[in-house]
Amino acid sequence: MANNKQVTQITSMDQDFAQWYTDVCTKAELVDYSGVKGFFVMRPYGYAIWENIMNWLDGEFKKTGHENVSMPMFIPESLLQKEKDHVEGFAPECAWVTVGGSEELPERLCVRPTSETLFCDHWKNILHSWRDLPMKYNQWCSVVRWEKTTRPFLRGREFLWQEGHTLHATEAEAREETLQMLEIYARCYEELLAMPVIRGNKTDKEKFAGAENTYTIECMMHDHKALQSATSHYFGDGFTRAFDITFQDRNNQAVYPHQTSWGFTTRSIGGLIMTHGDDRGLVLPPRVAPTQVVVLPIAAHKPGVTEAAEKLVERLKAIGLRVKGDFSDNSPGWKYAEYEMKGVPLRLEIGPRDLENGQAVAVRRDNQEKVFIPLAELENAVPALLETVQQALFDKAKANLDSHTWPAQTVEEVKAKAMDGFVKTMWCGDAACEEKMKEAAGVSSRCIPFAQENLGDTCPCCGRPAKHMIIWGVAY
Amino acid sequence: MANNKQVTQITSMDQDFAQWYTDVCTKAELVDYSGVKGFFVMRPYGYAIWENIMNWLDGEFKKTGHENVSMPMFIPESLLQKEKDHVEGFAPECAWVTVGGSEELPERLCVRPTSETLFCDHWKNILHSWRDLPMKYNQWCSVVRWEKTTRPFLRGREFLWQEGHTLHATEAEAREETLQMLEIYARCYEELLAMPVIRGNKTDKEKFAGAENTYTIECMMHDHKALQSATSHYFGDGFTRAFDITFQDRNNQAVYPHQTSWGFTTRSIGGLIMTHGDDRGLVLPPRVAPTQVVVLPIAAHKPGVTEAAEKLVERLKAIGLRVKGDFSDNSPGWKYAEYEMKGVPLRLEIGPRDLENGQAVAVRRDNQEKVFIPLAELENAVPALLETVQQALFDKAKANLDSHTWPAQTVEEVKAKAMDGFVKTMWCGDAACEEKMKEAAGVSSRCIPFAQENLGDTCPCCGRPAKHMIIWGVAY
Repeated sequence: MANNKQVTQITSMDQDFAQWYTDVCTKAELVDYSGVKGFFVMRPYGYAIWENIMNWLDGEFKKTGHENVSMPMFIPESLLQKEKDHVEGFAPECAWVTVGGSEELPERLCVRPTSETLFCDHWKNILHSWRDLPMKYNQWCSVVRWEKTTRPFLRGREFLWQEGHTLHATEAEAREETLQMLEIYARCYEELLAMPVIRGNKTDKEKFAGAENTYTIECMMHDHKALQSATSHYFGDGFTRAFDITFQDRNNQAVYPHQTSWGFTTRSIGGLIMTHGDDRGLVLPPRVAPTQVVVLPIAAHKPGVTEAAEKLVERLKAIGLRVKGDFSDNSPGWKYAEYEMKGVPLRLEIGPRDLENGQAVAVRRDNQEKVFIPLAELENAVPALLETVQQALFDKAKANLDSHTWPAQTVEEVKAKAMDGFVKTMWCGDAACEEKMKEAAGVSSRCIPFAQENLGDTCPCCGRPAKHMIIWGVAY
Repeated sequence: MANNKQVTQITSMDQDFAQWYTDVCTKAELVDYSGVKGFFVMRPYGYAIWENIMNWLDGEFKKTGHENVSMPMFIPESLLQKEKDHVEGFAPECAWVTVGGSEELPERLCVRPTSETLFCDHWKNILHSWRDLPMKYNQWCSVVRWEKTTRPFLRGREFLWQEGHTLHATEAEAREETLQMLEIYARCYEELLAMPVIRGNKTDKEKFAGAENTYTIECMMHDHKALQSATSHYFGDGFTRAFDITFQDRNNQAVYPHQTSWGFTTRSIGGLIMTHGDDRGLVLPPRVAPTQVVVLPIAAHKPGVTEAAEKLVERLKAIGLRVKGDFSDNSPGWKYAEYEMKGVPLRLEIGPRDLENGQAVAVRRDNQEKVFIPLAELENAVPALLETVQQALFDKAKANLDSHTWPAQTVEEVKAKAMDGFVKTMWCGDAACEEKMKEAAGVSSRCIPFAQENLGDTCPCCGRPAKHMIIWGVAY
């Protein structure tokens, strides 16, 4: 009965990156295609990654004074229409409930694509005085957007996310909040997911429907394309005026508060796959991996081996690591392939010879390097090695980003590098030039990075004076 | 500006229990009525209670080997129809999505009222061999059921819950799982929520649509009405046959697996309110309370008082308690009323005289009892007092249950006691007698309790030989 399961092959990244991606998603058992067109099942292994991300983010949200709430999943059409830009952006991709029970509804309800309007509707009921501010809320839920083409994690008709919504007495405080949350997102990518990010401003063309400013973090995937990885929006008082939400300030004047929202989605898992994965499958950074170490007995029938492997599992669990021992009768070869596919950061083997030598053999997933670990040093050596792997993954991704970000002076130079990474140029700030670059070079503006450089004085599209440095790329 | 906020009065329980309940829900800031008819907003304080319940349950689910997943929120009509009893039970209360983006859908999608059909659809893809079993999955999400009348927590068109779905090789294992999960639910009520429960079997009439057996836990509210508090279902192979899900057993035979599901909802918070609350508002058991202790400085302007109160907060946080200090300029009277309304289990006051005496004054929410706590004993005394409160709340609820559960021999006796608690009688097992009792006495069958008693030999409805003792009640 052993070796019943087959070692599954996946498409090579270089041969077909898109096929490689979907192979990893299904073969590593992260998702299943559901019978509902455009919707995915997140399987236990995929959801466990999301749980680790949720725990990290939720901890940071609470440390910064945010509270979780739950809002209705439906929005009446009239409510969605209250803010003009917002409804224009979202109405075309809503799913509409028109029948409840056996009755046609008097007003159709859209399944939330995002919840700004619901939060505003609630705030109107509960906000009275400056003493009630700030209101810093967050919601963990799923939202629906009726996409035409879908891919696991990257684009689905439903995705899981958190959406933060806050209200502040002043513009300054709201802007500070918007940037604070972007920074938490950036740290989540860098510290937890080992993914370097570029922080910046979206152009007016690319900002969120109804926002005054949208801040973004952009990541580069292994194939050098861009992934918009999380966004944070400053709304000013546009929604609060549209919904007529006011509070009494300290001088008893009725004032419109300032608003933010910010979201982080399961798309991050798609980014994780496309940043670190390789031809053997998924590669997970230790801090976010559901299983950090898999312990395998080698020649398990030999005296003492199974017991020694069990002891390893026990000792590593005792120091808080997420460890799994595989004592099944599958062959070592099958097990190697299985845990490589699943991206487990460290494989720890112990066999008769290791027992004699008082050691275990650790094999890193990221570079296949073997490290001999004296059993006496287990509790120090394994966590240290996991941190080494975490840092190595970040460094490798950073090297990819740095070596594939190109300065350019002309539209032709942008076009030449468009499929080979990010291209940075100066820009006059005019939407017409942004459009022109898109048409001529096949790229979209990713962001105006906070870290500006001076690459010249003029816009490559129109020759007029430049206002900013901007980053272009081909995006998922 | 102090005392700006008014101490809000609520309706007395004895005067109008239903109005008292909705008063507590809104005045304790647990929920807000949303602009979407029949849908509620769970505000931070209400959601924090749910988070504590989720953490407790999720921990138990994982300890017993369950994994979290995420399924689509929509079910195509054809999928819902695959199991005959199931669709009959749920189709009449579904919300239907008929438009996606700007297009009429070829097949309408119901917003999940429960997800058995989605899990079956997924299992059909991924189940192959006996080695894949058991599959023990859970999902945290919200579901929609188009109810006509709604009340916060108790009955809404959307509610939050977890739904567990498992698949097993044998009937025995599936039945064991069903009972194991019911027992976890019962312990959640008893240990976390301080609510005594009755464990039992639902009658055929009251069981879940498509189930072979539904186990339930029933609680008694302060007004002596029943709340069905959580259920666990054994399905046999009804769904797996309908969906044609098989696995290869150890003899290479294709076999239909056995299935369970079990759910626990935010309705539990409604039960919590109606079990422990009083005319001052909410009363929360310490283990589930978002704030376990509120520290109030008395005469805060006197030297050393504020610092001493801050020190109390710090020391209690250090031992892991959920503590809040209120250093606002609201009056002590306002603060007393506020934290009583919110059901904070313990109020800890410290003023100039207490400072002199090296003590703090603890006031219990459940019975207003004052306890002097020497500051040197803080870290032992406060947790011990919280446990005393937890136990006292359980004992009080248990006394209410025991003193309002009545044995009866005739339909008339049942009718006489129907509005005054649970009534237990013998029963022949015939659905006609169950219906007769309902019509004659205005009660529904709550359960056939696991703890059976012999109250006689015959059914009070038909006089034929009795099979079980059954419990009747008026239910929410």
